[in-house]
Amino acid sequence: MNPTNSMWITNAWYIAAWAKDVTGGEIFARTILDQPIIFYRTADGSVTALEDRCCHRHAPLSKGRLEGDEVRCMYHGFKFASDGRCTHVPGEDRVPKKYGVRRYPVIEKQNLIWIWMGEDRLADPDLIVDWPFLDDPAWPYKGGYLHYQASYRLGVDNFLDFSHLPYVHEKTLGTSAYADSRPQLEPTDFGIRIVNTAFDEPLAPIFRPFASFPGNIDRWSNYDFHIRGNVLLGDFGSAPVGEGGHLGERKNAMQFRHLSCMTPETETTSHYHFAQTRNFGLDDEALDDQVLAATVAAFLEDQDIIEAQQRIISLDPDRPMLPAGIDKALLHIRRETDRIIEMEQGARAEAAE
Amino acid sequence: MNPTNSMWITNAWYIAAWAKDVTGGEIFARTILDQPIIFYRTADGSVTALEDRCCHRHAPLSKGRLEGDEVRCMYHGFKFASDGRCTHVPGEDRVPKKYGVRRYPVIEKQNLIWIWMGEDRLADPDLIVDWPFLDDPAWPYKGGYLHYQASYRLGVDNFLDFSHLPYVHEKTLGTSAYADSRPQLEPTDFGIRIVNTAFDEPLAPIFRPFASFPGNIDRWSNYDFHIRGNVLLGDFGSAPVGEGGHLGERKNAMQFRHLSCMTPETETTSHYHFAQTRNFGLDDEALDDQVLAATVAAFLEDQDIIEAQQRIISLDPDRPMLPAGIDKALLHIRRETDRIIEMEQGARAEAAE
Amino acid sequence: MNPTNSMWITNAWYIAAWAKDVTGGEIFARTILDQPIIFYRTADGSVTALEDRCCHRHAPLSKGRLEGDEVRCMYHGFKFASDGRCTHVPGEDRVPKKYGVRRYPVIEKQNLIWIWMGEDRLADPDLIVDWPFLDDPAWPYKGGYLHYQASYRLGVDNFLDFSHLPYVHEKTLGTSAYADSRPQLEPTDFGIRIVNTAFDEPLAPIFRPFASFPGNIDRWSNYDFHIRGNVLLGDFGSAPVGEGGHLGERKNAMQFRHLSCMTPETETTSHYHFAQTRNFGLDDEALDDQVLAATVAAFLEDQDIIEAQQRIISLDPDRPMLPAGIDKALLHIRRETDRIIEMEQGARAEAAE
Repeated sequence: MNPTNSMWITNAWYIAAWAKDVTGGEIFARTILDQPIIFYRTADGSVTALEDRCCHRHAPLSKGRLEGDEVRCMYHGFKFASDGRCTHVPGEDRVPKKYGVRRYPVIEKQNLIWIWMGEDRLADPDLIVDWPFLDDPAWPYKGGYLHYQASYRLGVDNFLDFSHLPYVHEKTLGTSAYADSRPQLEPTDFGIRIVNTAFDEPLAPIFRPFASFPGNIDRWSNYDFHIRGNVLLGDFGSAPVGEGGHLGERKNAMQFRHLSCMTPETETTSHYHFAQTRNFGLDDEALDDQVLAATVAAFLEDQDIIEAQQRIISLDPDRPMLPAGIDKALLHIRRETDRIIEMEQGARAEAAE
Repeated sequence: MNPTNSMWITNAWYIAAWAKDVTGGEIFARTILDQPIIFYRTADGSVTALEDRCCHRHAPLSKGRLEGDEVRCMYHGFKFASDGRCTHVPGEDRVPKKYGVRRYPVIEKQNLIWIWMGEDRLADPDLIVDWPFLDDPAWPYKGGYLHYQASYRLGVDNFLDFSHLPYVHEKTLGTSAYADSRPQLEPTDFGIRIVNTAFDEPLAPIFRPFASFPGNIDRWSNYDFHIRGNVLLGDFGSAPVGEGGHLGERKNAMQFRHLSCMTPETETTSHYHFAQTRNFGLDDEALDDQVLAATVAAFLEDQDIIEAQQRIISLDPDRPMLPAGIDKALLHIRRETDRIIEMEQGARAEAAE
Repeated sequence: MNPTNSMWITNAWYIAAWAKDVTGGEIFARTILDQPIIFYRTADGSVTALEDRCCHRHAPLSKGRLEGDEVRCMYHGFKFASDGRCTHVPGEDRVPKKYGVRRYPVIEKQNLIWIWMGEDRLADPDLIVDWPFLDDPAWPYKGGYLHYQASYRLGVDNFLDFSHLPYVHEKTLGTSAYADSRPQLEPTDFGIRIVNTAFDEPLAPIFRPFASFPGNIDRWSNYDFHIRGNVLLGDFGSAPVGEGGHLGERKNAMQFRHLSCMTPETETTSHYHFAQTRNFGLDDEALDDQVLAATVAAFLEDQDIIEAQQRIISLDPDRPMLPAGIDKALLHIRRETDRIIEMEQGARAEAAE
């Protein structure tokens, strides 16, 4: 097993792709947790995920050919079923059992393809977060993707940190009130819940094209971060001052639901999937594009500073950082992540004995 | 000595270049077995091969200047004869014996330049394979070259393997009959002989522009692979069904002679020289180009899958492959190659004591 | 501390930049001795040099914002004074003492910015070489800079070596007389003094556009190389034969003063600053450009061979070079440099105990 597996949690459902990335009749290839993987749809429309490495001579199956529900390696013609079993070896009458490629548990749910990178027996579909906003016509959106030249850890740090908003997103998401805000943190069994509210302040610049309020607004941000899978689920928005938007009274509110997920590709690169759904302009497709574009614009600001941060860290990876009070959420999650990684390593070491 | 030398056989004649690559009055530079080397012609037309590294301050001689049969380093003016001796050191009246660069045994034969990378005392010119088709007007061709981003081992595997033809070369060399064919293998003192015949089948697509047979053909492929130098020599072709083409009756046959050689450049890059000679269209120069182009087109199909295979292997180089029956020839050659490399290492270790 | 620090002397003033590179209101970033550093000017015009790595989450301050004399990290808003102290942490009432970034002693002098990379307490400004020609209107010039893909050591070797002139600079600086010339060498407390004279020879090609002498010339080159900082200071020129130019009689002489400095960036890359001042054409700005262009043209010849040399060395870094008589100066300096590096390492090891 690749030793770099120790850098991340493997027993987790990770977002591998948007459902639309895997179209019928074509192979979609992506590296996840240092493992090269192919994705394709079988005749029943369901998604298969197989190791992108023929067991025979390690040619990539992503250069292969789909034949019905099977995939054929186009180097020497070995064929594999969607469960990874080898079904044909040219020149052999029957296929010895030793042949085959790893098949990864994979589930399509709410427009996303989730993959399980750890032990098969633990791959319980109920562990996938349920987030109905991704396939509810009342919450339109277009799914986003960015490829990061940085560790998923730096991306996750960023998810858990409101204090960067007024600096990184000065002209987009940030309002100066964020700088000193102390969100409420509540450790949970899945990770952490973060609640941030602000009262009687101007609407953030990024939202101004989408809503006009008579004056200042109250805003709320309720975020749940799930350690396994690095998934952030958010409920945030703005409402006229005093209407109780943060308490759930949302009559005149501009509401968003947000998903962000950082899936490790390699030690220093990541896949970032995100969605910004909304409760207004339901049938306005142009608005889907505008909200996506505004979100991407803000997230490119994150990517720029995070990739720069990665470059500085790579110069001297062992130098300690100096945490501050604003880091409570990320420190909690880093500790918990490390604890789970250590547990997994311990279990693997025990199993290897 | 560079430790990577252990990855390949050094006591072997390798093809360094086509004769035409080294023109009079110019320095031709190429890295072979991790050694930077320059080639040039002396006044008598013969080829010299010297280490591309001045003994003084390690400047490359490939940035130097030819002065008659000698080469001058254009950093500080050290001059070297074609046997590697240093003949001039600026500022010194006489040249101490310690100065000099390594001179490699090199032989031009049948339009190829062969180099010996191991111990000088073993460099017997008679060990170079004799293959008269390369300078026989009855067998015209144009020499080919491809640079591979892959280990020579993956290229050699490919030489020894007919089973990839219907997959990699589906539209060029392949015919489906290859998939299950079991060539005759005969281990020899130089490596292995592979004989493959097929009867009453259609002509492969790649050859259709060059010949018209009344119907199906019989075809033969007789290949000799030489471990030292990674040289494949082939006699193959097609003849009308039942005429005994594979038995040497070649009255109406379309015949080719083929040379392929994989010379290691570095651990994961290689020089691939090849020639496809033929017994027809002797004075048709345009045909030389057409046959070369068709061969290159097929070989780019190999290169594409082999370089992809190398990338997958590099992700996890220690993961074992699972051999199959079709791998008999390549497994034999891998074992023999490893055995010779181990012997060479043992001899070097003993000599170092 | 980064272990690569052992590759160079740290207790030295190095040239970090030309004064003009650091303009008011902007951050100038450069890596020196493997340390990422920012430079900026405070309101009084003086230059500050700070670690380009926020102590908090290691984001680069070069992506930050100048606020008066301070710089704010634009990831989370930590602010730093020009002495490296952290003056603001968002969300904290007071700033704990542990926060801060390294501040490097830096001095602007004679149009250059000098930085001290070692122990602060040893950073004595009087150790900076005094070279008045850089801010004397009687000696006009334009400052030059080249980025080298090579170790500073190969650049310094080149400074100390006249024997490459007729080869590398055949058509620019070189005249054949240099090949066998044996300059006078005088080891000094700062490094080495090199004196080279030649009599009754043609003017070097590079200087012909700038001067016309009735016939041959005598030329002198007096160079002082300072080990700490890798600074070469030169006084060289040409005068009519027999007028005693080399003795200081400079009535009709074409005189230059030259500065060259090789500042390590990383193990295999360097910053090369240089200046070629002259005593003629004082008010001719076009001449400034012409002399700079001629100098750069010659120095690109050095860069080409030195970067090629680095590539060959990198193939086999432990292979020994074979020194010659012409290497006396560079061998002396290499030995002295190694001796100082070892002393520094010893002192660091002792301090760490």
